[in-house]
Amino acid sequence: MVAAPFGGETICLAERFCAYIARPGATLTTHIGMLLFPRLTQLDLTGPYEVFARMPDTRVHLVSHSLETVVSDGGLALAPDNGFDDCPPLDVLFVPGGPGISGAIESRPTLAFLQQRAPAAQYVTSVCTGALVLGAAGLLAGYRATTHWLSLDLLPIVGATPVSERIVIDRNRITGAGVTAGIDFGLVVAGQLFGADVARAIQLMMEYDPAPPFDSGSPRTASAALVTRITERCQKLQDERKRLLMASRKTDGSTAS
Amino acid sequence: MVAAPFGGETICLAERFCAYIARPGATLTTHIGMLLFPRLTQLDLTGPYEVFARMPDTRVHLVSHSLETVVSDGGLALAPDNGFDDCPPLDVLFVPGGPGISGAIESRPTLAFLQQRAPAAQYVTSVCTGALVLGAAGLLAGYRATTHWLSLDLLPIVGATPVSERIVIDRNRITGAGVTAGIDFGLVVAGQLFGADVARAIQLMMEYDPAPPFDSGSPRTASAALVTRITERCQKLQDERKRLLMASRKTDGSTAS
Repeated sequence: MVAAPFGGETICLAERFCAYIARPGATLTTHIGMLLFPRLTQLDLTGPYEVFARMPDTRVHLVSHSLETVVSDGGLALAPDNGFDDCPPLDVLFVPGGPGISGAIESRPTLAFLQQRAPAAQYVTSVCTGALVLGAAGLLAGYRATTHWLSLDLLPIVGATPVSERIVIDRNRITGAGVTAGIDFGLVVAGQLFGADVARAIQLMMEYDPAPPFDSGSPRTASAALVTRITERCQKLQDERKRLLMASRKTDGSTAS
Repeated sequence: MVAAPFGGETICLAERFCAYIARPGATLTTHIGMLLFPRLTQLDLTGPYEVFARMPDTRVHLVSHSLETVVSDGGLALAPDNGFDDCPPLDVLFVPGGPGISGAIESRPTLAFLQQRAPAAQYVTSVCTGALVLGAAGLLAGYRATTHWLSLDLLPIVGATPVSERIVIDRNRITGAGVTAGIDFGLVVAGQLFGADVARAIQLMMEYDPAPPFDSGSPRTASAALVTRITERCQKLQDERKRLLMASRKTDGSTAS
């Protein structure tokens, strides 16, 4: 293949310009809204953040119910840039995962924000168990999607078809698997928005040439004993998530039953 | 090989207990100190942070010259947990990279902090161009090390031998390549501290089974045109870094000439 630097970018920018004309309130700057909530898994968010912040003419907004600092499950403090009301129109709506999704699924303002912003977004996205929050908001009903391997079996509760792949694109829904999938996810989104050449340049600057020192990153490759041990240890959490998702289905008319 | 769950961990914890007895001021809790400075590349730090925060009985401290919030090159705000003076004894000393390393290399208090804490640390570590900050502090003289691919040729200025590998371990120095290498690095450090079984469990929880959507993560695999374009675009920054490292060599007697 003959190299055509930035050819893809030109096409994608033209598409974005058409979208800009077509959509009221949209601008040529790409606005990404990343949801913050207490006890999120920070790498679900900071992986794609690193990619998004390197895209041309892009602004990343950390968006939260209140403007208070949010602390991740591992103790990292993250300060919101915007509340739900003062957040600009978003081209990409993003939800990370983590133990804190239980609180997000029970938060009516959080689900309402996602439901309100999704129709105008070019892409509605998640990494890890963020997919369960999108699902609780009724935004994955009828879509193929992925999530953290431990939670794949919960997706049907919200009407989604689970797909055990690293990244799943179904129309304008883009979902990533667990935690570190956020980097692959970010590059996929960069490619969709700006073309493969921009994504490749970002990949090279981030030296994303992974070399895991162990081969234990998926239930396919990890030892059966380890998979069983983690599954058993997380059973109570997963049961709680199942209960919350069932409850969200009852209160949210937009979720497929 | 017969599976021996946590066998490795037991051995490593025994080693840590011996270290605890041997080193005054050390505790059984593993303390990791991660340096913050303005315009760091956040994923250099948040990648390994995610691994460290999942290690048993471990506390991660974000350490900075002042207690003011630090903003990454991509705009993410990070709040320090400790100043240089009130930071507890550190088992692992870690330095991230990013455009802000120029300021860190010129900051006498920052280099003094690293020089003061390195002798008592079990591991002295970096990801990406954080290696240049360690080098400016005289802490890589005589060691093999790696850094972001664009900066490998700067390592000899601080007396280090550049090695174009993802992770380089030389005695108690552990250095990682650019940005995303921080995840591989974190798992290597987890394996060193707690054994391979603990690192494997963390890898599975983080679903670290990378699948880059493009093959452009290293100058070996990226197109020659892209490598040239990025190298040219960064030339001025690299020249400035070279000048700062040469200057640090003159003012820091501990750096090999």
